[in-house]
Amino acid sequence: MKIEDVDFFYLAMPEILNIGDGSQDTLLVRVRADGLTGWGECEASPLVSIANWVTPMSHSACRSVRDLVTGQTVDSPHDITRLGNRVRAGGLDIAQTDHTFSGLEIALWDLLGKREGLPVYRLLGYDQAFPKMPYASQLFGATSEETFEKAKASREQGYLAVKFGWGNYGTLTPEHDRDQVAAARRGLGDDGILMIDAGTVWGDDVEQAKTRLPALAENNVYWLEEPFVGDALSAYRELADSSDVPIAGGEGACNFHMARHLIDHGKIDFVQIDTGRIGGIGPSNAVADYALACGVTFVNHTFTTHLALSASLAPFAGIEAWSICEFPVEPTRLARELNSGEMARGEDGLVRPSESPGLGVDPNPEAIREFLIDVEIKVAGRTLYSTPGVD
Amino acid sequence: MKIEDVDFFYLAMPEILNIGDGSQDTLLVRVRADGLTGWGECEASPLVSIANWVTPMSHSACRSVRDLVTGQTVDSPHDITRLGNRVRAGGLDIAQTDHTFSGLEIALWDLLGKREGLPVYRLLGYDQAFPKMPYASQLFGATSEETFEKAKASREQGYLAVKFGWGNYGTLTPEHDRDQVAAARRGLGDDGILMIDAGTVWGDDVEQAKTRLPALAENNVYWLEEPFVGDALSAYRELADSSDVPIAGGEGACNFHMARHLIDHGKIDFVQIDTGRIGGIGPSNAVADYALACGVTFVNHTFTTHLALSASLAPFAGIEAWSICEFPVEPTRLARELNSGEMARGEDGLVRPSESPGLGVDPNPEAIREFLIDVEIKVAGRTLYSTPGVD
Repeated sequence: MKIEDVDFFYLAMPEILNIGDGSQDTLLVRVRADGLTGWGECEASPLVSIANWVTPMSHSACRSVRDLVTGQTVDSPHDITRLGNRVRAGGLDIAQTDHTFSGLEIALWDLLGKREGLPVYRLLGYDQAFPKMPYASQLFGATSEETFEKAKASREQGYLAVKFGWGNYGTLTPEHDRDQVAAARRGLGDDGILMIDAGTVWGDDVEQAKTRLPALAENNVYWLEEPFVGDALSAYRELADSSDVPIAGGEGACNFHMARHLIDHGKIDFVQIDTGRIGGIGPSNAVADYALACGVTFVNHTFTTHLALSASLAPFAGIEAWSICEFPVEPTRLARELNSGEMARGEDGLVRPSESPGLGVDPNPEAIREFLIDVEIKVAGRTLYSTPGVD
Repeated sequence: MKIEDVDFFYLAMPEILNIGDGSQDTLLVRVRADGLTGWGECEASPLVSIANWVTPMSHSACRSVRDLVTGQTVDSPHDITRLGNRVRAGGLDIAQTDHTFSGLEIALWDLLGKREGLPVYRLLGYDQAFPKMPYASQLFGATSEETFEKAKASREQGYLAVKFGWGNYGTLTPEHDRDQVAAARRGLGDDGILMIDAGTVWGDDVEQAKTRLPALAENNVYWLEEPFVGDALSAYRELADSSDVPIAGGEGACNFHMARHLIDHGKIDFVQIDTGRIGGIGPSNAVADYALACGVTFVNHTFTTHLALSASLAPFAGIEAWSICEFPVEPTRLARELNSGEMARGEDGLVRPSESPGLGVDPNPEAIREFLIDVEIKVAGRTLYSTPGVD
């Protein structure tokens, strides 16, 4: 299949709030070839990645993703890998490149799966997919009382595992944070699985993180996520060396290497990969292979639509021991209404990677139309990008 | 000084060639406050960084640089550091953020230096600046004969140190590359300092790099630069462990951490920092401090204008032992004509960090007008960016 017909769609809620909810907008990618349509999503600033898609060349290692993929052919998983290497080399000096390519790479796997009549996990070499226990991923309440209610509600909705994050966790006092974590534990019950997401709040300040460890241990937290920015390897390692609380991180990884470094040098226990950011399904799967060899647990990171969720599950679908997955429970209307398919929990409360050809979750044209943001980019009098038609 | 008046200018040569010459375009940043004007340059894809400057918010960690800096005040070096931390936190999920902020950060140092009547190196705490021996940085010739002539010409122009890179080095056979390196050595003479820049050509393939080591050692190469992409820490370490040829790298570092990792885990001997990419002069200076403590040599990376050159020298101006600096000798007409000031070599062949207030190299308005590229970005019917006036 020759890559010729690729479109980027910037979708957003009517109002974007200054909170840690990543489902307020999205950048959707559509690839059409041989009468089939593949879909993917970038976990990225839509306008920056659209500019990265069309930007004029600066030099041989600073070229647009469009320039690097147009006219290339993809007929096998190997071709997708080869294309990724080409894009990373030709787009080396544009930091956004992997963010931008991710959605297209995912759409190519979707397309290839549809052509072969196989779910993506099969294309990755897994013989079967195992169900995962979803953890309900949500923002902390504004007060510990509110967090308690949210945890309780999640349990009542059948979630045994719950993650709270962002809000003002880590920005006030250790006592405040202790109350929040304790409230979450009370709401969830003693047998629930509780994760806490610090959302990089401490930058690379290990001492700040250490003051929170006792409350996390007391409340039997399953993991502390992203105490630091993903690049702060020495901070991760130092905290890991002095903590009994398992540490999770990796969502910020823009390529295989960054995730590997957190394993090699950051000593994390859980590596969390966002397929829409690391360069797609191929690099995510490479991290899964590496994590398996290192005895680190792979978990998906996803906070938007069920298309993104499906793409995030494929890379580790075939490993039975990795039984937990992230599952956004309070996405915006945009993220809820975008997809015609859905990755519903089964009666046993578990989520199953899609068995349909490709990713099994296609966006709904009416929702695309409703949330579509009109963009026009002109350079030297030439229109390099204007929002494409939905049909 | 309150940050209110910031402009980004996209400048480019009339034709951009698909070669490794990074001086074919540039993204200039102007900040005006208190009747003074500061200038900086981003080493970045101009359109992608302009989009990053103006992009609508996606969520609380995915905000435009403009949104994060507007209305902030800068009256001291500490304020610039604080502002950088703010931008990195609020722009965390946009990979391009540090590339984009770099030019603005540099312009703020220039502005602050002009207000204080001090060169930037003084603002960084250095009492004096030491001259540096420039190495003439250029692309390999298309043939080894051409490389020989280029090396010979450089020596005749008074350069004792010369670096060759890119072209097809590393892409053909070890024998081809041996001829190229030997030709460079012959042209330069036995007493010259010869560096070779592989331009990340081997990705993370250590075996490919190893096949080139004997020819590099034979020709007494001062360093082998960027055998791998900057993220391939384990490849760097493995090569360093089996090589007598010193290894250099770091130009791709988008933040302090990435440079530190190459020192800590990549075992490089020279850390090369591009002020226009790592987030500006402050983070570059932090790398210099770290390198000093680790016994690693800091070198500037710069391949464009003398404004970028001046900004790249300040962070290590005060360390006498670090006596070598990169000096582009075949920049495009754009890069040559952009600046009214110039960082000329002295009669002793050495380059001196600017002693003028700020960075001492202001762009020339006529050149800006000549090379200016018209850009317009519209989102949801609103013009977020249009090319500003030069005056």
